[in-house]
Amino acid sequence: MNGTRLVRLKDVLGRMGASRVSWSVTSIGKGSSRNMSGDSCEKCLTLDNMNPHIKVMEYAVRGPLVIRAGEIENELKNGAQKPFKEVIKANIGDCHAMGQKPLTFLRQVLALVTLPELLNDPRFPDDVKERAKIILAGCRGGSVGSYTDSPGIEVIRRQAAAYIEERDGVPSNWQDIILSAGASDGIKSVLKLLKARVGGQKAGIMIPIPQYPLYSASIAEFNLHAIGYYLNEEKNWSLDLDELVRSLKEAKDHCNPRGIVIINPGNPTGQVLTRENIETIIKFACEEKLFIFADEVYQHNIYAPNSKFHSFKKVMSEMGAPYCNMELASFMSCSKGYMGECGLRGAYSEVVNLDPDVKAMLMKSISAMLCPTVLGQAALSCVVNPPRPGEPSYELYMEERCGVLDSLKLRAKMVEETFNSIPGFSCQVVQGAMYAFPKMELPAKAIEAAKAKKQDPSTMYAFELLESTGICIVPGAGFGQKAGTYHFRTTILPQPDKLRAMLDKFREFHLTFLQKYS
Amino acid sequence: MNGTRLVRLKDVLGRMGASRVSWSVTSIGKGSSRNMSGDSCEKCLTLDNMNPHIKVMEYAVRGPLVIRAGEIENELKNGAQKPFKEVIKANIGDCHAMGQKPLTFLRQVLALVTLPELLNDPRFPDDVKERAKIILAGCRGGSVGSYTDSPGIEVIRRQAAAYIEERDGVPSNWQDIILSAGASDGIKSVLKLLKARVGGQKAGIMIPIPQYPLYSASIAEFNLHAIGYYLNEEKNWSLDLDELVRSLKEAKDHCNPRGIVIINPGNPTGQVLTRENIETIIKFACEEKLFIFADEVYQHNIYAPNSKFHSFKKVMSEMGAPYCNMELASFMSCSKGYMGECGLRGAYSEVVNLDPDVKAMLMKSISAMLCPTVLGQAALSCVVNPPRPGEPSYELYMEERCGVLDSLKLRAKMVEETFNSIPGFSCQVVQGAMYAFPKMELPAKAIEAAKAKKQDPSTMYAFELLESTGICIVPGAGFGQKAGTYHFRTTILPQPDKLRAMLDKFREFHLTFLQKYS
Repeated sequence: MNGTRLVRLKDVLGRMGASRVSWSVTSIGKGSSRNMSGDSCEKCLTLDNMNPHIKVMEYAVRGPLVIRAGEIENELKNGAQKPFKEVIKANIGDCHAMGQKPLTFLRQVLALVTLPELLNDPRFPDDVKERAKIILAGCRGGSVGSYTDSPGIEVIRRQAAAYIEERDGVPSNWQDIILSAGASDGIKSVLKLLKARVGGQKAGIMIPIPQYPLYSASIAEFNLHAIGYYLNEEKNWSLDLDELVRSLKEAKDHCNPRGIVIINPGNPTGQVLTRENIETIIKFACEEKLFIFADEVYQHNIYAPNSKFHSFKKVMSEMGAPYCNMELASFMSCSKGYMGECGLRGAYSEVVNLDPDVKAMLMKSISAMLCPTVLGQAALSCVVNPPRPGEPSYELYMEERCGVLDSLKLRAKMVEETFNSIPGFSCQVVQGAMYAFPKMELPAKAIEAAKAKKQDPSTMYAFELLESTGICIVPGAGFGQKAGTYHFRTTILPQPDKLRAMLDKFREFHLTFLQKYS
Repeated sequence: MNGTRLVRLKDVLGRMGASRVSWSVTSIGKGSSRNMSGDSCEKCLTLDNMNPHIKVMEYAVRGPLVIRAGEIENELKNGAQKPFKEVIKANIGDCHAMGQKPLTFLRQVLALVTLPELLNDPRFPDDVKERAKIILAGCRGGSVGSYTDSPGIEVIRRQAAAYIEERDGVPSNWQDIILSAGASDGIKSVLKLLKARVGGQKAGIMIPIPQYPLYSASIAEFNLHAIGYYLNEEKNWSLDLDELVRSLKEAKDHCNPRGIVIINPGNPTGQVLTRENIETIIKFACEEKLFIFADEVYQHNIYAPNSKFHSFKKVMSEMGAPYCNMELASFMSCSKGYMGECGLRGAYSEVVNLDPDVKAMLMKSISAMLCPTVLGQAALSCVVNPPRPGEPSYELYMEERCGVLDSLKLRAKMVEETFNSIPGFSCQVVQGAMYAFPKMELPAKAIEAAKAKKQDPSTMYAFELLESTGICIVPGAGFGQKAGTYHFRTTILPQPDKLRAMLDKFREFHLTFLQKYS
């Protein structure tokens, strides 16, 4: 039975074009424990008897390519001669790592809640002090070192609800807000509410292809079934109703569809969905009784002139009954946007219209983890309750915020234009988020060479790019791509000068690659 | 099939004496969604079709009693008249919430890594600045807002390994150290490596009774089987080999035993295991091929004059082959000890002698969650690399550290002595950790009254105590207790004056309770 499960998940990943580069051959080391000397206990836990759902999990953003990039960094540090001086990590949306500066306001509030004696320091603005005091008043014993309620500090949940109301013009109930240690944590908490098997079949979750690998990884871990629906690359990675219908229809033979994930703005694809497109998806989900997972962590990252962020909650609410009563979980994070505070692990989920008994179970299930990091909660407080006009921190805050977003807008354009100027590349408009997902035509010989290595051609390409230039991207195989097409994801996060240099090196590499395999 | 699973888990919890007070009747609210008006979509997710493993989970430390305590706090805030003025939360090891002050050194380092411009502030000692610089140098882009490697920042993992070496006099490999967002996170990551079914039977994990409910909750979530072994209350809650053998033998009929959890110092029981006791457990685990989970988060909380903390790693290593080659995961946290930084979510796991392939899978499985909170990692850095003699922060650090530990020692004694002076109570020596777990003889009428309410008598007792005095403890049923015995867990954390007052009120309540049910 476990063998069958393994094969099924391999099928899914296979269909998504995922590479099968093994984790076990990495630098972590080999050496079979089963050959140990006679006086050792046998290993209790081996590949053969461990949890098979963990074994099949893949997480490309941190996969073997990234491990190799780390090794190369160490080799460079130890004086190895390479055709480049540093590794450029364009594989992950890690803003500060790429030189983005933290927001002063946010870090000042965090410093004050951490070390409250600084509340007496005249160098901190009054609005910063006021924010810090509000957070500390919500902490037991006035310390961020205390546990909070499992869904987070009440006052911050109320601030998040107010932020959503202001954003959408639609009511938000603070008791629907659950703070979490990053959006990944929140997504997993809701996803695991689903029963793995319903009516003799696995529960199915619709996920976009390409998708953010947290979804495929969590679906594998929870032994659910991934139903891939292709985004329409030709229409700037939007969702087609026909494709949703096709994908669901095919899936119904081997699973019981229960939910749909939409990532908007898109990761890895950078699209921003139109309101009409969202309405179509909502109607489809209602018809098919699907729980909606709206991954909206890039809601502040909108660059294209005609693009606007519409939350699923707002659209659903404005569509009226029956749509306004649908079950939805929407996810937001401190890690993206203009703040880019990935390491602080601050996030919220808004869960709407849940069956009250199910919601009670969700609340119970998160309680065993006690509470999300309080400093992450404090960071989220700053994101949902930023300085207002007239407050002392407002001007600097707006300058920093707009500085980041304006620069990202320029870089989104630079990346798109450069890739479209490279022979055989096509790149859709980066309307939002932090990534481009260009398509490339690869020579037949390169495809053959990759197949000989049992690699997806996009994976082979990414490894060669890394070894030749130090540029670390994620191959399309890690996200899924239509059979016979080859892509990669790059962030737009390197600072403008570095991004320019990276794109120039990329172009040069590609031309050499084409020659090599011509 | 799911029905069967539910029944089995109920059996286990039943045997552990867990109360079955339902979560769904709490303040979160009722109102069946299935009676919604005709123009609504039906709910996708209901109690009937949700994940049954989440449904059966119980987590008493945050259960219905604690929810009721929160309600009472709100009632008091709104002016309700009660026989008490405040709720005393002796239900959870939440040090700062009970008035313990954070360590200056730790908070200063955190403030500096959060707001690095403070590195120029002459008011911060040099060793604080040096520690902060080391952490920042380990952060990409020099910011705690960047993602770190999934197992944490290398330099902090190295500091943790050095701390372990210094503690044990036995080598520790930094690549065996995995930082996590609290020990709970680390425990779950290792526990989920186990396959739920082996050879047609559920995988079994031996856990103490009484136990810390994270284990029963996680075992339920991962669909594993809990094998309870009773601690020997008469021998100050130590582990008996005969009992381990008995419990394992009985369990082998209905599960496949794979691991054993030991909590030392004990939660909720406060014992500190002797070296001989630990050796016995290690031999047993080796014989039975059990993976050892050593929960050692209270390693700094040792109060009894003849007690000493011995880590499982140290004892195992010193026992030589085959024991020194056994698989072990040891857990340590910033939340307890003398720092009590629960809200920061800093912790490490040391995983020893894992099959390298399995270890690679563990590393992969945590990668999808990106990284634990960087400020939690920074807090752990301060715990494993504290000020040294001669450094500017050393004296204040030692004063604060010893102040906390000395006071806890006094309170441990005060709690033990007071409970032993109450008629019908017996309380073992609180040798370590932060809790007492007294046994009480309850009148037959009270037991009958509880049974009529379908509550464990310890649960009924705890509810009456809460409503009458505002004291919130956790009933023994939440941790498991021998059939026909009744206990509760209280922390020793209220500050001395408050603790004295609490104990006096407790005695008074108990006498009234005895009268009521006489």
